[in-house]
Amino acid sequence: EIVSAIEGLLGEPRPLAGKKAIVTSGPTHEPIDPVRYIANRSSGKQGHAIAAALARLGAEVTLVSGPVTIPDPAGVSVVRVERAEEMRDAVLAALPADVAVMVAAVADWRVASAAGNKIKKRPGEAPPPLQLAENPDILKTVGHHGARPKLVIGFAAETENVADNGRAKLERKGADYILANDVSPATGIMGGDRNRVKLIGREGSEDWPEMDKDEVAAKLAALIAAKLSA
Amino acid sequence: EIVSAIEGLLGEPRPLAGKKAIVTSGPTHEPIDPVRYIANRSSGKQGHAIAAALARLGAEVTLVSGPVTIPDPAGVSVVRVERAEEMRDAVLAALPADVAVMVAAVADWRVASAAGNKIKKRPGEAPPPLQLAENPDILKTVGHHGARPKLVIGFAAETENVADNGRAKLERKGADYILANDVSPATGIMGGDRNRVKLIGREGSEDWPEMDKDEVAAKLAALIAAKLSA
Repeated sequence: EIVSAIEGLLGEPRPLAGKKAIVTSGPTHEPIDPVRYIANRSSGKQGHAIAAALARLGAEVTLVSGPVTIPDPAGVSVVRVERAEEMRDAVLAALPADVAVMVAAVADWRVASAAGNKIKKRPGEAPPPLQLAENPDILKTVGHHGARPKLVIGFAAETENVADNGRAKLERKGADYILANDVSPATGIMGGDRNRVKLIGREGSEDWPEMDKDEVAAKLAALIAAKLSA
Repeated sequence: EIVSAIEGLLGEPRPLAGKKAIVTSGPTHEPIDPVRYIANRSSGKQGHAIAAALARLGAEVTLVSGPVTIPDPAGVSVVRVERAEEMRDAVLAALPADVAVMVAAVADWRVASAAGNKIKKRPGEAPPPLQLAENPDILKTVGHHGARPKLVIGFAAETENVADNGRAKLERKGADYILANDVSPATGIMGGDRNRVKLIGREGSEDWPEMDKDEVAAKLAALIAAKLSA
């Protein structure tokens, strides 16, 4: 009641007050050896914007972020990680929560056994093949977890068959919504300030017009608020 | 004569006035597919500092930089590249020059055939092995080039046998000097503001004390000025 009264005074609706949110953002870096790693292209802009938008609506937000160069959003707790396994551990440690939004571009694979010392180039010898191992699927783990949040939302970065791949991902991961976007280099979405997503839910899908990543974040935060109060 | 007169007036010695320098800096990113890449850890701080220090001594500097998040140094021409092959092309295009300082952490290997579309994870299937191909050796190419600069200087990022590996590199690459440093994670050099290097030349080697990367840059620029005027 007090919170509502203050909200009324301030004129800012805080529909997510008292709700806990987990957001992942950025890429993961998977070490090959002390100086080399495999990375995903991800600026963290969309994930950080979503964390900020949820916090503005009153949610208590834990942002689990891979290596990014953008500033921490205001009003959220940031947990910094590097590898996918670290990201999974940090997300599970943040449960229980009311909503989880998995925006990070998690590497599907890590190097099976990262070298402790720098792998030397041997002149004239073929380079060593990189043996890869599958990384934990964080979205799927959360989507099927005993302490599954009421709302689980994932992102799908695709370069082809965006809708079909997104819908298949929704089912497989146990997610409520997938925001699918086309990250082909020609779109300029990766690293850019704007985004164009397709929201895929169990009841159907809708195309959102191209807008700033901040606007995508605000629209998604409003949807989350509506779903959690329903 | 006019330049010397102005120098006298300003009180700033510009011993590299009229000299051309090429500096490489930062990592290279080698694409696996549109969203994934192999990278080296390199902030670009040391390379950018060297480019700035050479410019302060009057050199006309071309800085060929991989993807970094630090600002361009004042007074240098910056050529931005992503892959090792692009870096080699940009360096060769900047020849002839009086000195080349190769600081970039160039990926030794690239992915043999980068995929045009995002490689999909197939649940239950083993990840595809990554076939690697050797990247061009930019330092060696410049060290043996018909238009070889009078002074060719390379960096060696090592995690073991720093001196031996550095000396072997000097011979193999046709360089005049190698600055070898120990980039083991425990040293904090990678990404940090300080550096501790061993200067390896044909006549012997000397250990420089730990100092700021700016100070390493100034000391190296002074050495270059002395050698080029000798």
